[in-house]
This record gives sequence, C-alpha cells and structure tokens, in this order.
Amino acid sequence: MSDAPVTIDPSDWVCPLPLRETKRIVMGHGGGGVLSEELIENLFLPAFDTADAGPARDSALLKVGAGTVAVTTDSYVVQPLFFPGGDIGHLAVNGTINDLACSGAQPVALTAGFILEEGLEIDVLGAVAQSMGAAARHAGVRIVTGDTKVVGKGGADQLFVNTAGVGVVPPGVSIGPELVRPGDHILVSGNLGEHGVAIMSVREGIDFGTAVTTDSAPLHHLVAAMLATGDPSHVHALRDPTRGGLVASVVEIARAARVGMELDEANIPVPESVSSACSFLGLDPLQVANEGKIVAFVDPAHSEAILETMRARPEGANAAIIGRVVEGHPGMAVGKTPFGTTRVIERELGEQLPRIC
Amino acid sequence: MSDAPVTIDPSDWVCPLPLRETKRIVMGHGGGGVLSEELIENLFLPAFDTADAGPARDSALLKVGAGTVAVTTDSYVVQPLFFPGGDIGHLAVNGTINDLACSGAQPVALTAGFILEEGLEIDVLGAVAQSMGAAARHAGVRIVTGDTKVVGKGGADQLFVNTAGVGVVPPGVSIGPELVRPGDHILVSGNLGEHGVAIMSVREGIDFGTAVTTDSAPLHHLVAAMLATGDPSHVHALRDPTRGGLVASVVEIARAARVGMELDEANIPVPESVSSACSFLGLDPLQVANEGKIVAFVDPAHSEAILETMRARPEGANAAIIGRVVEGHPGMAVGKTPFGTTRVIERELGEQLPRIC
Repeated sequence: MSDAPVTIDPSDWVCPLPLRETKRIVMGHGGGGVLSEELIENLFLPAFDTADAGPARDSALLKVGAGTVAVTTDSYVVQPLFFPGGDIGHLAVNGTINDLACSGAQPVALTAGFILEEGLEIDVLGAVAQSMGAAARHAGVRIVTGDTKVVGKGGADQLFVNTAGVGVVPPGVSIGPELVRPGDHILVSGNLGEHGVAIMSVREGIDFGTAVTTDSAPLHHLVAAMLATGDPSHVHALRDPTRGGLVASVVEIARAARVGMELDEANIPVPESVSSACSFLGLDPLQVANEGKIVAFVDPAHSEAILETMRARPEGANAAIIGRVVEGHPGMAVGKTPFGTTRVIERELGEQLPRIC
Repeated sequence: MSDAPVTIDPSDWVCPLPLRETKRIVMGHGGGGVLSEELIENLFLPAFDTADAGPARDSALLKVGAGTVAVTTDSYVVQPLFFPGGDIGHLAVNGTINDLACSGAQPVALTAGFILEEGLEIDVLGAVAQSMGAAARHAGVRIVTGDTKVVGKGGADQLFVNTAGVGVVPPGVSIGPELVRPGDHILVSGNLGEHGVAIMSVREGIDFGTAVTTDSAPLHHLVAAMLATGDPSHVHALRDPTRGGLVASVVEIARAARVGMELDEANIPVPESVSSACSFLGLDPLQVANEGKIVAFVDPAHSEAILETMRARPEGANAAIIGRVVEGHPGMAVGKTPFGTTRVIERELGEQLPRIC
C-alpha cells in the first residue's frame, strides 16, 4: 500500500471502447445488450482490475472462513414506480434475491440505498419501503442496512433504489457458466415476457385486452428444490432473464462457456397475451425482461427430474425444456422455428425497452 | 412463505412521520441530521421489520458459519464529480471501506452500482471508474461485481454510484454504540472539516487563499492498528463523521448508548484554513462532513496508548483526545468552549451542505 494520491483526471483517460458514433452514454449502455457488455469488458473490468475475474455471473463469490459468500448489486430505475402486479420496491427485493439464487446461494441479507428527488411525496417512498419489507418477509430475507440521499428537484426522476445482496452458497453447490457443456438441456421456469409487457402497457397507456402483470417473484426456494433433485452437480448454470430477456441469458452463457445454443422455439412458453402485445409493439418476446423466471442449463440425464421438481412448485408451474447446448457455432444461439427452419438469434445492441427495471 | 401478492398501493399507506410543514421529501431527509433519523426510525425501520435491529451502526453484522460478516451500503451523489483532492469514485470506495472499518471489520469486497444520465461523456465515467479501481487497489480491497443503469437526459444528474461493502469482523472484536459507557474518552483521528470545505470552495468558486483538499482516505488499517493496541475490547465504538460531521456522530452515539458527551472544544483539531472558510460561509466546522476521519470511544485507561498508535500512522497524525462520555444529560452533547463556558451542541435538522458525498 502506498500513500500516493489515486485520483484520476478525466482528461488523462483515453476511452478504450469500440467507438460507435458517440463518445457519450446512450440508453443502450444500461440495456443489458451488446453495448452494456462493451462497457463492462472495456471500461469497468480493466479499471477495477477484475479482468481476471472469470466468467460473468449474477453474483461474485467470496471465500469467508470455511464457507462461500455470494455478493451482488442492482440499481432499479423503473418507470413508472407502480405498475400492474408490482412496484419498484418489489422488483428491487426479488431481483437481487434472484441474482443470488442464480449463483446457487441462499439469500441472507439485503441492503437498501435510496436516491430521492426533492419534492417526492413521502407517501410514495413509504409505499415503496412497505412493499420492500413485505417482499423481503415473503421471501424470508432481511433488509439489514440502508442509506438515503436526496438530490434537488430535477436532479433525479422521483426515486431510484439500489439493493445489494449477500447470500451463502451451501457446501457442495457449484454453479457457473464455465460448467455448461455440449449436450446440456436448457430449461425455463415458466412464461416469458410478462414483466416487460406489464411495464409497457401502463407506460404507453395501451390496453391489450387481457391484463398482463409483472412476474416479479423470488426464486431461491425454486433453486433450492432444483439443487436438491438428485445431486446439486446436475445443475450446471442458472441465469435470470431480466434485461435482454431469454436471448441475452442464452447468448451470454454461450459466449462464456464457448458453446453453441439451440432453442426449440415452439417449446418456449410465451402467453398469447404477451405475444400479441409484442407483435403490436414490435418487440421480440424472447428479448423482453422477466423478473420471476430462471433459465437453467442441466445435465441431460437429469433434466426430466429437475423439470418435474420445477413444475411441482407455483414459481415453476409452466417450466419447459426449450433446447440444448451444442458443440457447433460457439458463442451463438440458433432457434429452430415452428416451421422447421433455423435462425440465428442475436442480442440487441442496446435495449428494446428503457428503464424496465 | 405465502404466495399472496405483497404489493402496497401508495394510497393505502399513512405517513407515520412527525409531520413538519411538508409531506414531501426535502433535501434535509438526506442530510444525516434529525430529518434523516426521523425517516429511518419512522418510515424505513417499521417497513423493513428491523425496528428490533439494535443500535444504529455503520454496517449490519451477519453471522455466517463460524464468523461474522459486516455489510454496508452508501450511494454517492456529490456535485461536482471532481473536486480538490478527489472525486466521486474515490469517495465511494473509501466511504464504504470506512463504514466497514467502523464496525471493526476488515473490508473484503465492494460492489459498484452506477446510475448514468444519457449523454454523460464516457471519458467522465472512465475517469471515475479508474479512480475507483485505483482507490480500491490502494486500500487492498476488490470491486467484485457491479451494475449499470442509464436514465434519459434530465432523469439524473450526470452520475450516481452506490457501493455496498462486505467485510469480516476478526474473532474477538466487538464494537458498537451499546458498549460506550460513562468515563470513556472521545478521540478523533485528525483535522476536521476538510472534505466539506473542499467541495464548497469549488462549488461556490470561492478561493480561500489556502487550498483545502478532501481528506478522503481509507481507515481500515488505522482501525486494525487501534484494535491491536492492547486488547481489542479497549475500543468501544467507532464512527466516521461524514454528513453532519463530528456533532452528528457524537449525538448519535449519545442517543444510542443513553449517555452524555462532553467535548473540550479547544482540543478539537480544526485547521485555520477550514475555520476561516467556515466563518465566511456561515458553517460550523464541527458539523461539516469528513471522509477520512474516525471518532473513537475508548476505555480511558488505554486512551493514551491508542492515541499514540493513531499518531504513529499518517491517517492519524493529528489525532487528539477531545472529550469524554458522562453520565449526565443522556442523549445530549455539550461543548466546553475555550472561554470556559459550556454550550449544548445540537445536530442540524436537515443538512448544512447538500450533495456533499
């Protein structure tokens, strides 16, 4: 440790990003697509000296004494704050629980950091906090510490909340993109696209006939049940398909594990209400955010047993086997359409839907 | 666990705050003073079911296996992003390290959650990230995971960052406001008021003659050295005097431990440059934020030895014994002025300086 000053002047710093048309932040840098990945790989990881951190996962794993602790963080900027079936607080608790669950960790504690705009109604903050408390109790997780900052009117849009999460990885559990291998089956825990469509319907004031509500839900009990089906090593990797949807999850794992992915599109559960809303809005339901679903990459010899476990729980009632990991086309995903044709499935450059979570 | 929905409608929620003239968020709700405390005690703790969480501390403590893990979170909204001697990234790393250190924990890992305004120059983000990385390396702590959200132009003010921290409390270390008792000596690790004055000087474009720079620095090595002086139990409580300054730290501990505090104002180290800037700006230097100082409440039989340890390190070179804990006037702090008179020292209702950290 030296005591030299460590401050960097912005004029000393040369942008290493693959420069597209701009040297400024665009909405897509927060969208969970290609631009987000460029920012992480070219700007954050080198700056933080974590270029050797291994494959990207939803939580970082720390050895603490004899055990392994998982740590994760997410900021929530969804607009509007309240939407069909949920609100920003509900999302902030469940989203961070699910990031821990996707590392095989059982969540222990959450932190809550609020950034508030001056003039926000205290009743709005109160309702969000109540919702966070209720969601945490529902999940059996405690919110243990917090922080509140206020910025002047116009300095923020109503209310942002960050939740960081700490969880414990049970002994014997080891999950990660690097464990995915050709032959693995790909499972999803249920209907896709509901969260994004619920937000868009209320934001755009569009009535799609059938009300679509967010799927925001905690998935750590589902994950625990999956890991308890046979041996925990049958589950190779888990991912929650939030920003960028199923496609982002599958392509990220394909790139990290250097394998190909093959999806049977006819088997992917997308409710009629979601697919009709998506065709109206010009969205791909496989790229729309979910907040209560999990994508699992599992040993093919045990995929039916794990599927049965998932379907036995309400969070996994509509679970399905939707594809497989292949040796060909590493880093890419292809979809087999209901018509027997094949298409390459690519992530968005930026994001379809801004401020969805 | 029930599967009932847990969302709360804002119209269902009745504000339990002691209502002052507003039912809206004001800047002072983020100021670390009385209004902040009201928000925490009346709104967050009941909502999060942590009313029984025990005395407020800078980190939450979790039992993980045989060990104790400390967890903390802080969002940073300081303006301007770059200021004399530091920047928002530097502050975000050191501030969270210091919250862990004040629980007696040695920091292990930090998370970084960014909220960016569309149109922010990528070079600015790059410089902040570089500074965070450099500060983390300087402190010997890793930034292990992160998240980036982007909001539209006008939806946030340039860049906000949240850092959550995870640390490990060494066996035998137990620190907390509840351990403070009458007779304890009060120590500060060095000059007060520098961070707040550095920000105000650049924000207001005022030249105070002598340049005052932020004191932002990591204090976990200083704390480790203090705990290694004799027995760790000689250190009863630690607090970093950020928002609300020394006064907020001392009054918070007085309230939590139900004791009185007596400060010898002549012994409190305030540099001439800070006191003249504060009298020009109408500020009380004892209420101005610090980002590299610690207030310690220690066993009086060992205070001289701990002071010597502090002074032997650069972070504690100007450490001083500035007062004592008394049985009288529980929950209150009084100052003995250089003129031999006594005054009651009260916290601000809101904050002197908005967006100081």
